[in-house]
Amino acid sequence: MDATERDAAGLDAADPLAPARARFALPDGIIYLDGNSLGALPVPVTERLADAVTRQWGQDLVRGWNDDGWWAAPERIGDRIGALIGAAPGQTVAGDSTSVQLFNALTAAVRLQAGRPPGTPGRGGVIVTDAGQFPTDGYVADSVGRLLGREVVRTPDPYAALDRGDVAVLAWSTVDFRTGELWDTARLTAAAHDAGAVVVWDLCHAVGALPLQMDTARVDVAVGCSYKYLSGGPGAPAFIYIAERHQAGLDQPLTGWNGHSRPFDMEPGYQAASGIARARIGTPPMLSMLALDAALDVFDGVDLAAVRAKSLRLGEFFIAGADDVLAGLGFEVVTPRAAERRGSHVSLRHPDALPLMAALIEAGVIGDVRPPDLLRFGFNALYTSFGDLARALEILREVTASGRYREPRFQVRPVVT
Amino acid sequence: MDATERDAAGLDAADPLAPARARFALPDGIIYLDGNSLGALPVPVTERLADAVTRQWGQDLVRGWNDDGWWAAPERIGDRIGALIGAAPGQTVAGDSTSVQLFNALTAAVRLQAGRPPGTPGRGGVIVTDAGQFPTDGYVADSVGRLLGREVVRTPDPYAALDRGDVAVLAWSTVDFRTGELWDTARLTAAAHDAGAVVVWDLCHAVGALPLQMDTARVDVAVGCSYKYLSGGPGAPAFIYIAERHQAGLDQPLTGWNGHSRPFDMEPGYQAASGIARARIGTPPMLSMLALDAALDVFDGVDLAAVRAKSLRLGEFFIAGADDVLAGLGFEVVTPRAAERRGSHVSLRHPDALPLMAALIEAGVIGDVRPPDLLRFGFNALYTSFGDLARALEILREVTASGRYREPRFQVRPVVT
Repeated sequence: MDATERDAAGLDAADPLAPARARFALPDGIIYLDGNSLGALPVPVTERLADAVTRQWGQDLVRGWNDDGWWAAPERIGDRIGALIGAAPGQTVAGDSTSVQLFNALTAAVRLQAGRPPGTPGRGGVIVTDAGQFPTDGYVADSVGRLLGREVVRTPDPYAALDRGDVAVLAWSTVDFRTGELWDTARLTAAAHDAGAVVVWDLCHAVGALPLQMDTARVDVAVGCSYKYLSGGPGAPAFIYIAERHQAGLDQPLTGWNGHSRPFDMEPGYQAASGIARARIGTPPMLSMLALDAALDVFDGVDLAAVRAKSLRLGEFFIAGADDVLAGLGFEVVTPRAAERRGSHVSLRHPDALPLMAALIEAGVIGDVRPPDLLRFGFNALYTSFGDLARALEILREVTASGRYREPRFQVRPVVT
Repeated sequence: MDATERDAAGLDAADPLAPARARFALPDGIIYLDGNSLGALPVPVTERLADAVTRQWGQDLVRGWNDDGWWAAPERIGDRIGALIGAAPGQTVAGDSTSVQLFNALTAAVRLQAGRPPGTPGRGGVIVTDAGQFPTDGYVADSVGRLLGREVVRTPDPYAALDRGDVAVLAWSTVDFRTGELWDTARLTAAAHDAGAVVVWDLCHAVGALPLQMDTARVDVAVGCSYKYLSGGPGAPAFIYIAERHQAGLDQPLTGWNGHSRPFDMEPGYQAASGIARARIGTPPMLSMLALDAALDVFDGVDLAAVRAKSLRLGEFFIAGADDVLAGLGFEVVTPRAAERRGSHVSLRHPDALPLMAALIEAGVIGDVRPPDLLRFGFNALYTSFGDLARALEILREVTASGRYREPRFQVRPVVT
């Protein structure tokens, strides 16, 4: 046991969240540092999903929509997520993918502005979005801009962009998916409002990893996914938050029948439901929804401030360890070192990122890569230990220093990286 | 055993599809005639989904996207559905809800027409859709028409509408969700093409119940759901078929990163994948996808012509039984009696449809209602028996003739009907 591992043992012994690890079914012999891509399996999911299949679907059949609460699941699960993002009930609904939710959110946000009186700042303005964000956010912004005849401006500096004075919608990501940089949601939202813009936040890489304050920050609209720090399962349904003050005016393009005010009257014309139900679209994938519902149990009784505190300590520990253990091996920490500017993953730049990660995974440490040269390591404070990080750093050192990662089998790029 | 039940026993004894019933986990004491809303649980789903959760997600974690074939699942499952709709491989992909797929399909279809040379019929024309179709189809058509500046025309007579000469897109449902009326896909598609229109078929109430011929009928685009006759589970992912000849020109509005040509390069600009992969949107709800994948096993070795033949016999038997057993009780068969005009459910009109169905369900016969006055009974030839229908008719007779359905507890409308 070297110095880093001794430090880790002490930190783990003092970790008040250590018992939460038992809420997850983690495989033996694996150090899992990719919960920022797909969260680990929460223990309650297995039994609850088996019940959803064999009893609810198998025995109750179509009656499950009433008797097992399927119809109300998007709002019920939405409120559970809402509690984790600082949203009072009735403003969050679960369903569809992040891409689909972004399309609805951005279109509705532009229309909200377009409906304001002539002369209102932002009324006919541009969509500003993060130049470095997750690709789908930019693709969807381009598509919405094209459909609605609005220019899309990509920038690394949202504050400077707001100075244009003609920003209708600012669409930004709370945590940068590559670098792990954290943005100040409240400050940027306030600046957008001062400039007459509405904000659409992408919470994908933040939700479940740190406290968020949708209501007190006066966020307009936000979307996020549930398969990263919420551990809802592969491709688990996304969610959308719409501040109550905007709901009556929400005019979304994806007018599926689940969002109708009287869906079972099956009327030929669309009349949006009141409240957050109008953000529903089509019939939700219930098995994936119910897995997510069960997964959220791991947050029962958990204080997100404690999650954040441990996550920051994990990040500090990993960065310090990288400086020390990986010194001279060609790695560069690209994640901000300042706690207030860091989310819950740390990215290391290395020219051989792809084969290094392939070799690391073979050695039992799972992270991921983002092209061209970033290795990402995600920390879920509910199940990541300091010991995990110490061992991961040591294995990464060995894989790199030995040159083993240069073996041909690590040069093959997998389909999904 | 009365005459109807004796007939049923003979028909069941001679039914070559009778053994397929064992492929479903049907509850005891229930006659299930609502597989046209939510199909019964296929036996393979339970074990396969448990494996997807505990081994694939739990043990393989994020590696499941490669090692367990998750990333390729939308196309793999799409091709399995394609085999059931007369589509050669590479033209069908699974994912999202029917509402979302319709939005993509209609927008892409209008844009396909808009890209044609000036003077081409249908280039700048209207969207024609079924006046009596499932509500979401109309809502989405209205939304697409509004976004793209196209008029939406609702009609009960598509052939007359095509005579307008300015139809860009004809969006129609193969089987009417209320009446069970079946449309001739090939004939209407040919008429649309003759008029310069492209077709978008909604296959929701047909797929899995009868043979469909997307390729030979020269269908342009089709969408459908997988939770009815495909028995994929509550809210199971929908699918979209895009004829190969249209794929290179497909310009969809929901530009999620899964449809990018190099999704893991994470480039800032959208470049659509070649082939049907471009119809992918965001990250699919994998647990619901894998349940559907397992569910499709029930079609292994099944000839859809045999499914159709039995389905038609079930329909004839039910209609004849309704004429006989329910005579004088106020029911009217609204489903076409001619086999070539009938899908796989039969609807009865009765002014007390809602309380009658509530009483029927309490008595162990599950169908559903469509407002204001239709009782629907769906037949899945893989698990519905003639004996089921004989007993259902007798119980409906008893519930009606006794006046028991007038008891107050049957007057309460459930949330989901």
